[in-house]
Amino acid sequence: MSEPAPVMVNGFDGTRAADLPPEASELIARREAALGGAYRLFYEQPVELVRGAGVFLYDSAGRSYLDAYNNVPSVGHSHPHVTEAVARQLATLNTHTRYLTDGVVRYAERLLATHTLSGPGQAMFTCTGSEAVDLALRVARQYTGGTGVIVTANAYHGVTAATAELSPSLGPNVPLGPHVRTVPAPAAGVNFSAAVAWAIADLARHGVRLAAFLADSLFSSDGVLPDPAGFLAPVAETVRGAGGLYIADEVQAGFWRTGTHMWGYQRHGITPDIVTMGKPMGNGLPIAGIAASRDVLAEFGRTTRYFNTFGGNPVCVAAASAVLDVLETEGLPANAAATGGYLRDSASRLAAGSPVLGSVRGAGLYLGIDVIDPATGAPSGDLAAAVVNGMRGHRVLISATGPRGSVLKVRPPLPFGREHADQFLAVLSDVLADLPG
Amino acid sequence: MSEPAPVMVNGFDGTRAADLPPEASELIARREAALGGAYRLFYEQPVELVRGAGVFLYDSAGRSYLDAYNNVPSVGHSHPHVTEAVARQLATLNTHTRYLTDGVVRYAERLLATHTLSGPGQAMFTCTGSEAVDLALRVARQYTGGTGVIVTANAYHGVTAATAELSPSLGPNVPLGPHVRTVPAPAAGVNFSAAVAWAIADLARHGVRLAAFLADSLFSSDGVLPDPAGFLAPVAETVRGAGGLYIADEVQAGFWRTGTHMWGYQRHGITPDIVTMGKPMGNGLPIAGIAASRDVLAEFGRTTRYFNTFGGNPVCVAAASAVLDVLETEGLPANAAATGGYLRDSASRLAAGSPVLGSVRGAGLYLGIDVIDPATGAPSGDLAAAVVNGMRGHRVLISATGPRGSVLKVRPPLPFGREHADQFLAVLSDVLADLPG
Repeated sequence: MSEPAPVMVNGFDGTRAADLPPEASELIARREAALGGAYRLFYEQPVELVRGAGVFLYDSAGRSYLDAYNNVPSVGHSHPHVTEAVARQLATLNTHTRYLTDGVVRYAERLLATHTLSGPGQAMFTCTGSEAVDLALRVARQYTGGTGVIVTANAYHGVTAATAELSPSLGPNVPLGPHVRTVPAPAAGVNFSAAVAWAIADLARHGVRLAAFLADSLFSSDGVLPDPAGFLAPVAETVRGAGGLYIADEVQAGFWRTGTHMWGYQRHGITPDIVTMGKPMGNGLPIAGIAASRDVLAEFGRTTRYFNTFGGNPVCVAAASAVLDVLETEGLPANAAATGGYLRDSASRLAAGSPVLGSVRGAGLYLGIDVIDPATGAPSGDLAAAVVNGMRGHRVLISATGPRGSVLKVRPPLPFGREHADQFLAVLSDVLADLPG
Repeated sequence: MSEPAPVMVNGFDGTRAADLPPEASELIARREAALGGAYRLFYEQPVELVRGAGVFLYDSAGRSYLDAYNNVPSVGHSHPHVTEAVARQLATLNTHTRYLTDGVVRYAERLLATHTLSGPGQAMFTCTGSEAVDLALRVARQYTGGTGVIVTANAYHGVTAATAELSPSLGPNVPLGPHVRTVPAPAAGVNFSAAVAWAIADLARHGVRLAAFLADSLFSSDGVLPDPAGFLAPVAETVRGAGGLYIADEVQAGFWRTGTHMWGYQRHGITPDIVTMGKPMGNGLPIAGIAASRDVLAEFGRTTRYFNTFGGNPVCVAAASAVLDVLETEGLPANAAATGGYLRDSASRLAAGSPVLGSVRGAGLYLGIDVIDPATGAPSGDLAAAVVNGMRGHRVLISATGPRGSVLKVRPPLPFGREHADQFLAVLSDVLADLPG
């Protein structure tokens, strides 16, 4: 085997461990010995963390880091309501779904009430977003009798064997499946629905029946492409017209990330056949799953056993229920809309005065900011990395995304307030001023 | 689609919900409305649970059930040391592995020290056993350049698309993958290694290179086949001689279940290339993973990004570390060996006097007991179901396994003591006496 090693956006270069403080380089050496090489750290100088609270993380020296990156601890790091719910449930009962327990039923009912699917819905629970997409794929292939799947050019949908085949962003060493087609990421002036129709026709010309179109409703790994809201509606029509299912991957966009809607697909006014959920669902406890129209699930449910030992267990469900509580009681959706809007407007003003920043895009507290080479006007992954690492030097955590790693990825926990936005903007401004050249 | 609905061993028949007490049938109706139909309940009369402690589970009326089935809460239901470790970590920090944290490194070191692999090892963490097997498969296929996989005739290895293809026990509606071959489960007087060699030759004749032989070291779903210890050693040689990897699936056998060895493969004196771990690892918190020789992981690690958002997070690692603590401090391995031996001997005596029970097999606290039709001497899934449901009526929880569902599956939490074994045996004896005919 002689594939080149892939470059990970914002990945630590292990050959430079000797440049780090001795404690960090010693832990990194032990880590490299004990963990498989596929593990990657973030940043030129990895961050060692010992504590988190709200929108801050802390290292062993007690220094705080403003977290403008992590959407998993969506209601805030170490939220006491979640901790208490988990601890109480863990001290009481933690078992699987082949016994009757009311918690998983109540949670499923509560979750389904927030969805607007193509028909009355049902839920199934897994532990990870990868498993949720993997299950959605199994269901879609059985329901349609087709195998073809269409995704965007730099999509990411998971790390199981079947979902890695749908994830071009994993790079050329992870081949796409033979029945997978990609379409260019949505862009202004491009007819995205026509591109999908073209891919459907290409599948058909190869004798492959369409199973599903699958998209992250925010197109995060494609560079954060939320607008204009509604552009996905004709795609859903095209896909259904061809007998395929529309699967909305809400691992990134779900649970009020966008501020205005609980689910990213609702911004686009569509009613998906299957929705996949993950990351923020349990604020870090491993819970994920799908919601799908009952009609779509019926045959799979009748003929197939699917039992996920830890999926929907009482402890993870307690965490997930606590997340819904906090979203409701702490006004986080409204905060995501308000702080997100303020952040986007302020960052746009900053970008207007900076030769390095280009377009600022976002919905709620999910922002993408283009970084460009002032000399050429081209997207610059190197400069984006410089900004990301510069901000890390000022203890503000973000990362980068997009096919060239040239898009700043800003995706903080939802309690991120105006004062945190101001801190973020001040540091971004300083880092831009300090860029070489 | 018109496949027949599969019959699940010990599955509840939903058409009989009306026969249940009103509260249970109401919850079951809500459950069926809210959860996908692939969810199945155990028992003719499903058990509704609200609390667990040690080896007992409790329903809402406060009635206790002796748990002789659940190997996930391996150190006992609601173990306070696990609860405390999880609550403390959750209140402190829960994040992913792209930041440096020392817990995951320390746990990996501690775990690797217990393994005896084909070379110095490394660990990778996932959330579920399915994900662990799925990852092992990706690694094995990349390392060998082959795609062929050999499993036993009624194996179960997971529910992702790729692992369901390796799981004949899921039934005919879930087709095996084209590069998968099955071998008969190991049996006395059968040359198991020769059967594996035959399957390797068949793959080769189809132009398929071997990637791996994959087996649960206890062959649970094949009917619990632990003996004689050592019979797997020649298989490992055969597989390696053909360029394949030996993957030991320790989701069932691992973490001292067998009493004498921390890992089931160690009973057989083999040094696997990859080990998959799951169920009991975090006593119910979703943590799983693989351990593999560094050589096997090297190329995958160099060329492939594998990032499991929740995999190896500090909270699940805290649970897993606490499990290792309890296994050490509470003498559970010795108890598994002692109680397991007592249970096996006593059950064998009971079987000798019963026309319904046949062979009693087991290692530590994992027992399989054949149920046979006295009239024909043939294995009887119906009578096994009658025993399982009869014991449930006496509030002792077990299930059944094997290709015909004719093997009683006894697999309690490891604190299961002699008094619990006696309670189990007394109830089993009563249920046998009450069987019709």
